Amino acid sequence: MDIFTEINPVRAFLKGKRRQNFSVGLVPTMGALHQGHLELIKASMMENDLTVCSIYINPTQFNNLSDLEKYPRTLESDKQLLAAAGCDVIFAPTNTEMYIKQSDLHFDFGHLDKILEGEFRPGHFSGVALVVSKLFNIVQPNKAYFGQKDFQQFKIISKLVEELLLDMVISSVPIVREPSGLAMSSRNQRLSDADRAKATLFYQSLLMAKSLLQKGNPLEFVKTKVREKCGVVQGIKLEYIELVDIENLKPSHFVPSKTILLIAGFVGEVRLIDNLLLE
Amino acid sequence: MDIFTEINPVRAFLKGKRRQNFSVGLVPTMGALHQGHLELIKASMMENDLTVCSIYINPTQFNNLSDLEKYPRTLESDKQLLAAAGCDVIFAPTNTEMYIKQSDLHFDFGHLDKILEGEFRPGHFSGVALVVSKLFNIVQPNKAYFGQKDFQQFKIISKLVEELLLDMVISSVPIVREPSGLAMSSRNQRLSDADRAKATLFYQSLLMAKSLLQKGNPLEFVKTKVREKCGVVQGIKLEYIELVDIENLKPSHFVPSKTILLIAGFVGEVRLIDNLLLE
Repeated sequence: MDIFTEINPVRAFLKGKRRQNFSVGLVPTMGALHQGHLELIKASMMENDLTVCSIYINPTQFNNLSDLEKYPRTLESDKQLLAAAGCDVIFAPTNTEMYIKQSDLHFDFGHLDKILEGEFRPGHFSGVALVVSKLFNIVQPNKAYFGQKDFQQFKIISKLVEELLLDMVISSVPIVREPSGLAMSSRNQRLSDADRAKATLFYQSLLMAKSLLQKGNPLEFVKTKVREKCGVVQGIKLEYIELVDIENLKPSHFVPSKTILLIAGFVGEVRLIDNLLLE
Repeated sequence: MDIFTEINPVRAFLKGKRRQNFSVGLVPTMGALHQGHLELIKASMMENDLTVCSIYINPTQFNNLSDLEKYPRTLESDKQLLAAAGCDVIFAPTNTEMYIKQSDLHFDFGHLDKILEGEFRPGHFSGVALVVSKLFNIVQPNKAYFGQKDFQQFKIISKLVEELLLDMVISSVPIVREPSGLAMSSRNQRLSDADRAKATLFYQSLLMAKSLLQKGNPLEFVKTKVREKCGVVQGIKLEYIELVDIENLKPSHFVPSKTILLIAGFVGEVRLIDNLLLE
């Protein structure tokens, strides 16, 4: 496994590989790897000759300084996990490598970045688009892999690739869950055992909402039920529960097979998100 | 000379050339070519194995529908000029090839796109950044060439390349002028003979401003003199005359060798721009 921390050497390395007709898969991460990330690595390894995993905690996508400071950092164990998984290349740059100076460039995706996470994390998706553009331009992958847990991020990056005519394919990999149903997330590392148990409430809420919708209950009634369910648990602060069209993320009523339920909220000080495709 | 109108074939063609280690220069144009464009082609041919000229009138960078409709279109003579100049590839796509659907993506460059042209042509530079990103991602040039006449555009594209870590070099080529001093521009084709004579006023104003500044006159006095000079000529409508730092386009007082004078205005219905580096 080759490990790079600078742009020019990884570019030169990958240029050589592309000249040998290697196809390149990219899995962008912020480290603190878990089984969800390893599924992305596995998908990339199956579909490409060479898999690059980037590990970089991008400051411009954090709207909350404390969230940035407390984001888990586990580089040594990340390296071991990636080596064991058979990943070919790690790219783990520093801030000064990724940002020569303070960034003045911002992206606006219209409706796509104004709702859901965009509403509660202003500037988040502009920072995501910026860092992902950088990573795409450094690695120039044939295919890049993102987790379905960050569904809105996947839609925005798909939009970026479509609009800028980037010569690559973007792939979404299903959510990996703990046996409890909790969606795997690097931020779960920050949960106490008690909070980890409480955090399963979000997935339970999604399942309940799905079931209620399938029984024909109106959306507003279902949302009220979820708010009530979360409201009674101490330490849980629901931010949103929404049903949107999977194509354009416009608010949706219940139309089977083309909608997604998304939920976000705090368990103590840790903000978590989850979602469920309705089929 | 190879002529392409679709993205996939030109991509495949250039991929083959890059595999043979050809370096690629890109000259993005909106057609209606003149000697200024041919200097860009010449610069690219000297520095690259293969030169691509794109010809595409990008609707998203026009803030004024009439300006878009009246923009000169001379594709057949453009092809002849490029063939005679020795250009290797023309890429002249249609709107449906460049924009699958209405664009929802907008770029914000902070101060850089709020002033000068950005102030008078809202949305212009977002459209420029969008189409140039598309062209860069289609052609993947080693080097791309832009005219100094569109100085602010050059700065914004340089910023785009720097921020997104695009693996290419951006080059600016000096303004080419008519014997009268008029900066060459595709829009000059729309001028009557009488208006073409009047249009020299902008370059004359730049020269006068430079001279007055070099004699130690304060900037506000110099701007007033230019406004007076333009104000007395019927059919001329000055939009701005500004002195800014060449690095960050911040308003500047007269500091030799690091500033640029920029002017913009209408001659009849035709909007023209010009500039002069102060050394």
